[in-house]
Amino acid sequence: MLTLHSNMVFDSPSSDATAVEVQLADRSYTIFIQSDAQAKFASAAKQALGDVSHVMVITDEAVDKKWATGLADELQKIGVRVDKYAVPSGEPSKSVSQFETLLQWMLASGADRRSVVVAVGGGVIGDLAGFAAASFTRGIRFVQVPTSLLAMVDSSVGGKTGINLPTAKNMVGAFWQPSLVWIDTQVLSTLPERDFISGLGEVIKYGVIDDADFFEWLEANWQALINRENEAVCFAIARSCQSKANVVGEDERETSGRRAILNYGHTFAHAIEATAGYGTLMHGEAVAIGMQMAARLAIELELCGQQLLDRQTALLQNCGLPIVFDDANADAMLPVMKRDKKVAHGKLRFILPTKIGSVDLVGDVDESAVVDAIRKTI
Amino acid sequence: MLTLHSNMVFDSPSSDATAVEVQLADRSYTIFIQSDAQAKFASAAKQALGDVSHVMVITDEAVDKKWATGLADELQKIGVRVDKYAVPSGEPSKSVSQFETLLQWMLASGADRRSVVVAVGGGVIGDLAGFAAASFTRGIRFVQVPTSLLAMVDSSVGGKTGINLPTAKNMVGAFWQPSLVWIDTQVLSTLPERDFISGLGEVIKYGVIDDADFFEWLEANWQALINRENEAVCFAIARSCQSKANVVGEDERETSGRRAILNYGHTFAHAIEATAGYGTLMHGEAVAIGMQMAARLAIELELCGQQLLDRQTALLQNCGLPIVFDDANADAMLPVMKRDKKVAHGKLRFILPTKIGSVDLVGDVDESAVVDAIRKTI
Ligand SMILES: NC(=O)c1ccc[n+]([C@@H]2O[C@H](COP(=O)([O-])OP(=O)(O)OC[C@H]3O[C@@H](n4cnc5c(N)ncnc54)[C@H](O)[C@@H]3O)[C@@H](O)[C@H]2O)c1
Ligand SMILES: NC(=O)c1ccc[n+]([C@@H]2O[C@H](COP(=O)([O-])OP(=O)(O)OC[C@H]3O[C@@H](n4cnc5c(N)ncnc54)[C@H](O)[C@@H]3O)[C@@H](O)[C@H]2O)c1
Ligand SMILES: [Zn+2]
Ligand SMILES: [Zn+2]
Repeated sequence: MLTLHSNMVFDSPSSDATAVEVQLADRSYTIFIQSDAQAKFASAAKQALGDVSHVMVITDEAVDKKWATGLADELQKIGVRVDKYAVPSGEPSKSVSQFETLLQWMLASGADRRSVVVAVGGGVIGDLAGFAAASFTRGIRFVQVPTSLLAMVDSSVGGKTGINLPTAKNMVGAFWQPSLVWIDTQVLSTLPERDFISGLGEVIKYGVIDDADFFEWLEANWQALINRENEAVCFAIARSCQSKANVVGEDERETSGRRAILNYGHTFAHAIEATAGYGTLMHGEAVAIGMQMAARLAIELELCGQQLLDRQTALLQNCGLPIVFDDANADAMLPVMKRDKKVAHGKLRFILPTKIGSVDLVGDVDESAVVDAIRKTI
Repeated sequence: MLTLHSNMVFDSPSSDATAVEVQLADRSYTIFIQSDAQAKFASAAKQALGDVSHVMVITDEAVDKKWATGLADELQKIGVRVDKYAVPSGEPSKSVSQFETLLQWMLASGADRRSVVVAVGGGVIGDLAGFAAASFTRGIRFVQVPTSLLAMVDSSVGGKTGINLPTAKNMVGAFWQPSLVWIDTQVLSTLPERDFISGLGEVIKYGVIDDADFFEWLEANWQALINRENEAVCFAIARSCQSKANVVGEDERETSGRRAILNYGHTFAHAIEATAGYGTLMHGEAVAIGMQMAARLAIELELCGQQLLDRQTALLQNCGLPIVFDDANADAMLPVMKRDKKVAHGKLRFILPTKIGSVDLVGDVDESAVVDAIRKTI
């Protein structure tokens, strides 16, 4: 088993915490990854934020009693005034009307420009509370406390916040970086199995796009991971966060194209999610299938060999992720892919692997090759 | 009559345009001030934006036919796809629900990350459309075409965008800088008298806080200004924009305290507006009265002499602005001032003049002095 790179261990609030730095000039921040660290949260927050006298903990109803209440108590112990708000669990809470309700609650709770939002939950809460923090008096500080695996390895890092319009996901939002990301793997103990496995889809993605060593580590340690052995889980999260932090540090606002590599598998995945009906597949499951389609497309375009696909297939399958999608319908998926936000002027563009640990942005891809890649993944 | 400083005339799209630069590194932009320049708008927009294939003109119902339609036509002439949307005129359009409706319209009109918002209207439209531009796919470019005097000298410059909550103005928004501010004084021909005079309140403010030469010019030329003589109006707008641009360039996000000088008279004005009932006074009228209260407070605290107040009083009065407010009620105003966003931790802080052209931030001001200053302005 590979061990943690020493450069991933920083000055951290507890001896066994791993710290990953997101380097963004005056918007830099630290991601702490550790287990059973609730009692250390308040002092870490204080250290990251400097002065903090009023915190608004925002969470969802499922996470509230399990985890958010305990964190709120820790903050209160150090003399911070804490208010807490729980929205209904699930994607529908990422709506404009929930956004307004939340902002009105913030105002009523006496928030001002020095108040701090602490988002405790999965990606829904991070995105919603993050956008509320970005917008309240044109921006107050916020802390991400991700509680789903997906949120730990993806949505809590990088500053993308936002909500949905009825017909389009994540259409409204802001780039707004947190002041701290606090990952306590203990909370995963209550995360449903399917959510955990789904999150592994994004973990494997980092191996393919950015980190061949990590991919190898995953091939050797998937069993420990799906057994949720703590050391393995912490390592996988830290490695994933390190990859995401590197990419975000180079292309914070998705302007240079570098950040696009994070979308490996995603153009296909979004089309699968849209055509299968949202909710049929979990996001990480759709990403797994999307990566399979992307790898097949890369082979078709002679960007990589069959071995890459075989290794990816085996790893996804070992982790319990789907590798085919019976209901994939190329005719329905194509128009969705052409409307994808990441598509330039209606031309099909994909992030495609060249070898494990490395991808290219490939523009102007032939439709028939795309259709083939979809049909082979049924 | 003082003439334009030569450093205010830049490379501009027409020989008689004045250009003021807002210096904000990669978010820098130009404010063009000129008259009867509609035919030049499209090429100036293209020059400022580089590629532009889809524009969304956002306006209000009153401004739509008068001015926005003509600008949309100019854009169409150069081959840009243009969509146009008019919201009801007035402050109620700065609501979360109007914000959502607007974003859904943007999506339905086929907007993507390269689309551009052009806000044609007063401060309501600039604030609403600017926040929509800031939020749509986490930020697309936008152009300010202010049509009220207040919007020309204040709200269109500096990147503050936002909407209201039912109980708090401008509580939700973003700092989002335009790519271009296009001021055509011709549109003022249809602006109601009271709006024009109200805008002069902010113009005079710049003289007091930042520009003694300009204050002198105003003392000599107020008659030309209230007669809306074009040269005088252009000069006053350019000088006001230059002051605002300087301040914003030093303190974009209101963090250093420098930007606070723009709030001269405003802590009083907000309390007047809130206690008199919104709509009784126009904003610039409340600012005029607020500046009178602030000058009296400065005298009381021995920061400046009586002469400053006398000159300010005469200029405001000549311009047709109110200098007293019969219904001012110190008991009602004080609690509002203590809740003001600009107040630090409940302590009363004011921007107070030390001489014409120069102000200080004065903290921890005695309540009785504030009450006195209010009572003397009745
Ligand atoms: N901002 C970004 O960069 C980014 C990136 C990827 C995804 N996202 C967004 O993230 C969202 C999906 O995230 P998600 O999968 O975390 O969804 P989620 O927040 O809805 O969480 C999934 C479910 O798990 C529950 N849950 C979370 N943590 C738990 C825990 N520790 N124990 C028990 N239950 C728990 C939640 O209540 C919810 O029902 C989507 O809205 C997506 O758009 C954002
Ligand atoms: N963003 C900032 O920095 C900033 C600064 C100051 C004020 N503001 C905001 O600006 C708003 C007030 O601005 P405003 O006074 O321009 O209000 P406004 O946009 O409501 O315009 C006032 C009225 O004049 C009409 N109008 C505008 N231009 C016209 C023209 N050329 N001819 C005829 N009618 C015209 C409008 O339809 C409206 O009825 C407030 O919401 C305030 O919060 C923002
Ligand atoms: Zn994803
Ligand atoms: Zn004002």
